Amino acid sequence: MMQLDATRTGYTQVDHTRMANAIRGLSMDAVEKAKSGHPGLPMGAADIATVLFTQFLKFDATAPAWPDRDRFVLSAGHGSMLLYSLLYLTGNSEMTLDQIKQFRQVNSLTPGHPENFRTKGIETTTGPLGQGISTAVGMALAEKMLAAEFGKKIVDHHTYVLASDGDLMEGVSQEAIAMAGHWKLNKLIVLYDDNGISIDGPTSLADSVDQVKRFKSAGWAAEKIDGHDQAAIADAITRAKKSNKPTLIACRTTIGFGAPNKAGTSKVHGEALGADELKAAKENLGIALEPFTVPDDVLKAWRAAGSRGASARQEWEARLGELGSRKRAEFERRLRHERPASLAKALRAHKKELLEKPLTAATRKSSEAAIEAIAAAMPMEFLAGSADLTGSNNNKAKSATAFSAKTPKGRFIHYGIREHGMAAAMNGIFLHGGFAPNGATFLVFTDYARPAMRLAALMGAGVVYVMTHDSIGLGEDGPTHQPVEHLAALRAIPNMRVFRPCDAIEVAECWELALNRVDGPTVLALTRQNLPQLRTTAPNDNPCAAGAYELVAAQGEAKVTLFASGSEVEIAVAAQKQLAERGVASRVVSVPSLELLLAQPEAKRAAIIGNAPVKIAIEAAVRWGWDAVIGQDGEFIGMHSFGESGPAKELYKHFGITAEAAVNAVLKRVS
Amino acid sequence: MMQLDATRTGYTQVDHTRMANAIRGLSMDAVEKAKSGHPGLPMGAADIATVLFTQFLKFDATAPAWPDRDRFVLSAGHGSMLLYSLLYLTGNSEMTLDQIKQFRQVNSLTPGHPENFRTKGIETTTGPLGQGISTAVGMALAEKMLAAEFGKKIVDHHTYVLASDGDLMEGVSQEAIAMAGHWKLNKLIVLYDDNGISIDGPTSLADSVDQVKRFKSAGWAAEKIDGHDQAAIADAITRAKKSNKPTLIACRTTIGFGAPNKAGTSKVHGEALGADELKAAKENLGIALEPFTVPDDVLKAWRAAGSRGASARQEWEARLGELGSRKRAEFERRLRHERPASLAKALRAHKKELLEKPLTAATRKSSEAAIEAIAAAMPMEFLAGSADLTGSNNNKAKSATAFSAKTPKGRFIHYGIREHGMAAAMNGIFLHGGFAPNGATFLVFTDYARPAMRLAALMGAGVVYVMTHDSIGLGEDGPTHQPVEHLAALRAIPNMRVFRPCDAIEVAECWELALNRVDGPTVLALTRQNLPQLRTTAPNDNPCAAGAYELVAAQGEAKVTLFASGSEVEIAVAAQKQLAERGVASRVVSVPSLELLLAQPEAKRAAIIGNAPVKIAIEAAVRWGWDAVIGQDGEFIGMHSFGESGPAKELYKHFGITAEAAVNAVLKRVS
Repeated sequence: MMQLDATRTGYTQVDHTRMANAIRGLSMDAVEKAKSGHPGLPMGAADIATVLFTQFLKFDATAPAWPDRDRFVLSAGHGSMLLYSLLYLTGNSEMTLDQIKQFRQVNSLTPGHPENFRTKGIETTTGPLGQGISTAVGMALAEKMLAAEFGKKIVDHHTYVLASDGDLMEGVSQEAIAMAGHWKLNKLIVLYDDNGISIDGPTSLADSVDQVKRFKSAGWAAEKIDGHDQAAIADAITRAKKSNKPTLIACRTTIGFGAPNKAGTSKVHGEALGADELKAAKENLGIALEPFTVPDDVLKAWRAAGSRGASARQEWEARLGELGSRKRAEFERRLRHERPASLAKALRAHKKELLEKPLTAATRKSSEAAIEAIAAAMPMEFLAGSADLTGSNNNKAKSATAFSAKTPKGRFIHYGIREHGMAAAMNGIFLHGGFAPNGATFLVFTDYARPAMRLAALMGAGVVYVMTHDSIGLGEDGPTHQPVEHLAALRAIPNMRVFRPCDAIEVAECWELALNRVDGPTVLALTRQNLPQLRTTAPNDNPCAAGAYELVAAQGEAKVTLFASGSEVEIAVAAQKQLAERGVASRVVSVPSLELLLAQPEAKRAAIIGNAPVKIAIEAAVRWGWDAVIGQDGEFIGMHSFGESGPAKELYKHFGITAEAAVNAVLKRVS
Repeated sequence: MMQLDATRTGYTQVDHTRMANAIRGLSMDAVEKAKSGHPGLPMGAADIATVLFTQFLKFDATAPAWPDRDRFVLSAGHGSMLLYSLLYLTGNSEMTLDQIKQFRQVNSLTPGHPENFRTKGIETTTGPLGQGISTAVGMALAEKMLAAEFGKKIVDHHTYVLASDGDLMEGVSQEAIAMAGHWKLNKLIVLYDDNGISIDGPTSLADSVDQVKRFKSAGWAAEKIDGHDQAAIADAITRAKKSNKPTLIACRTTIGFGAPNKAGTSKVHGEALGADELKAAKENLGIALEPFTVPDDVLKAWRAAGSRGASARQEWEARLGELGSRKRAEFERRLRHERPASLAKALRAHKKELLEKPLTAATRKSSEAAIEAIAAAMPMEFLAGSADLTGSNNNKAKSATAFSAKTPKGRFIHYGIREHGMAAAMNGIFLHGGFAPNGATFLVFTDYARPAMRLAALMGAGVVYVMTHDSIGLGEDGPTHQPVEHLAALRAIPNMRVFRPCDAIEVAECWELALNRVDGPTVLALTRQNLPQLRTTAPNDNPCAAGAYELVAAQGEAKVTLFASGSEVEIAVAAQKQLAERGVASRVVSVPSLELLLAQPEAKRAAIIGNAPVKIAIEAAVRWGWDAVIGQDGEFIGMHSFGESGPAKELYKHFGITAEAAVNAVLKRVS
């Protein structure tokens, strides 16, 4: 190893090694105690992390939520003990040694993979590979945009990522690095823990990509270094901070560094070392054999590193004070994910206008109308984007200009044909704070974005997915583009809200609910095809908030309840009329959110569902989930297969999703 | 444009241009008539396609299923009129001009995006971007493996792909090209239609990746050419065929080539040209104004190109005849996706052994035992692989060796950390024929593979997903790795079969059903944790085939039916015993496949579900779908949120998924 330049870093070679070994020791011990976990990465990446956290990372361990902190994302989330060790060593107030000892136990702050919603000081939830690096792109993007808006005195921080082989093999990483390179996110620095080992063995079993060349092809700066050479690490980070491009630093490391027999093999990746190898590793590294021991002087050095940023933070707070009360309040409100008062007002006015002048339009178009109202109320925080379907998704406000490296105040993002990268970036944008991100594509392509959408639900990220072309109603593009199972598949994700509004008023109401939902993501499923405006009132209590409500009451005692969502509510209303002509009284319940209806208190749910003897649901999608409303013996008018290519109206007939079919199904029951 | 080397190609510059213009004319006309579709790509890529189909592609239009044909995959599936034009022009017997005129209409052979299950001569269903190129990797892989096994006299063809910007932006393309480069699939040639235009406008809005450098970093040969210069195209393909690497040919083209006002803009991407521009384009190109006109001499030249391969096919058939009857029968059986008789025998013997010597094991381990039996019966066609979780997924037979460029007879594929690329490659392997592919990862990561899995279901590809760690039972890895909604989300996909076997016997039965299902994909959801062997018989009619069956009858008239799948069947059996002790008779129904149960004829379904007054389902997952069995008022013991990190047994207690909880829920109802 090279000698450290003590004049620059202020501490000696011995300090570095002993500090890095503290990470190694805690990580080995915690995994050993849990009999579960991944010691290899923390041991291999300890040198990288030590250099980063002691010399570069701008943070104050006592204030993990400081808005202008540097972000550190452990994309290789399985190496969570690296992060927990760092939190403990640097002095995070909640991360006690006791928590480290509770590694991977129920209710601990130290779960198997890092969870930002559980543990302070963790920036994002990682574990599913590729997500961390892609989320970090969103964080770096948010930094760039917010810096352009509020100035570098208030927003000026870096985003560091520690990524593994697996992160870079996952396809989403390509989407992410292509975006970062295109946007010239020069404050994004990825440290690649290039240990050459994955679970199956040497990465050469499955991979021969030259990552330096690959990142360069995407507009990054990239270089290879020895990841155990602290001077080389420091030099590379210093270069990266000066680059006008995002930077990849491929750090050649030895997985399980220090373990005399298992280092450099897949055996040290994902299981405890075992008593013998643990002892040998500690002896080899010069670590006390007693578990969870950190020498006082080493802990002191780490704590000093952890408080290193305190003065910078205080200076930042002084600058924030100088910002002017209005701008400061705006900045702080934005970071709290609080909506401006003007939003509710704007949407009220929008709904009033719709009532006065009803809008027959596709819900993607009435969504566009709602967006005009919303963007006017929150022009700098409403951050829309599309995966190359801008003109089809209709989520670009007229006032919004395209974001680019040169136009960082643009508030519309052309994500390219990268649904997964878009969704992951949106997570990062939300987690960074300052924006209400929404991203758009066709509903069927939620399949591409699903891993990042699931993480949004798990983390409680208040992002909005504008998913248009939400059924066979998209017509001629055919079954590859027609979602039939996607509503069910999305509703099944815990904490995911799916809205499928039936008209322009519901669209406005669902947008309002979506934007005010800052503890979880919302899907807006919108049509390609035109729909009439069915609603004639827009009460302040927002009927969509209960997931469903009676849209049209029965004339007389209802023998039938017709449930429908989105474009099929029109069909339900038509069926209701036809039934009335035949003397059958029925009510129509609009169900913009099935899972929200099912989550209502039992009495409320029962009241909405009602007790008409015949229950029928109409949705141009598969039946999954509807039995909870209509019962096993309920009638269902919907899809039982994939779709077909053809004009939308013909497809509805072809698949029997019509008022006539609904009426016939009902008449079988009531006659 | 350069002059074509007539000595090599045998036809003149004029011929080429007029032949290419036939594609342009048909494509413009069909889109115009449908008032829907994508003229830009067929017009832009017509020169590339004409060179490929007239000079290189080995095919016989009269025999689109010839096993040794070159494969042509239109990854940019939205340009389907390119493919339909080529099928018609080259003389595909079903692709009449009338079908071209029915473009994008219900029941036509010319749907919006190419569907291999509908239209002969189409290799795979494309449209969702990135899938075609990734599926093609599987085809080229299958070719390499099959050639190594049966010899180059029988298997020696290329796989050509026409890919768009969007294909290369999608992350899955990175997974695919990394695999192809690593495996040195030199017979894979990707023609990249580099027209610089996507839906939102110039690709420079969202992208600045240097694709040539990117592909080179993944071990490909790559070059840029003028995609309207037929000599350059031919030269590049000639070079590609000689390369020892897969090749990317980035063909700079003009989207909508020939349309005087709209060419080179996003306006020509996805909508009809309109009457004026159509007329102007035809005049510009020298095409007859009358719609759907192909001059006789041009059609004749195309038909000659289409029958060009007839003699090669006849020679191949002669070589096949010389192969020896046994090897030939094997080859043909394999391509028909027929299983060897030895498979059923092997599984019968395996089940017999299990009955004699019951196996308490995780179902991933009993799956491994089944695989040993299966691989012995079909060692060369059972093609397993894992996305870097081989030791955890347990789907590698002991006899299987790793596939690599140098060991093409290896029958275990290390896919790397590329779930999506794996699933897409498996589609290609299946479509190519010759193998029964199965691929493995954790169940939660089906989210990553979902777009390719959906395509498998749509296409009816008989692939098997070995998805282990199928619940909170995986323990300490925590909620990022614990599927809770995935069973529901997969069951919702039409034509997707999901099996969650409860013990070693059910595992063998489900494997048998999965391998014999050649018209659709199957998910095997398997546990990490140990399970007892509950079954004491293994009848020949395979009880799992109905999706569910009574595992343990009630002693006396059942007041309760306990439904459960997989690891929770053990809990149901324990609950049954506890209930019996309290005098409550109950039956246990094992539900290895919920959606298969629901698909049974009504009488059969009703008989299995039974009419015990209390119905309770136990599954360590969300409730979605179960109401169809237990009713709205049924009891459900399962998950209502994401999971947690902790030891499996503690998690089951933490989330209340225990026999005690089931008993208590039942007693509330029956007491």
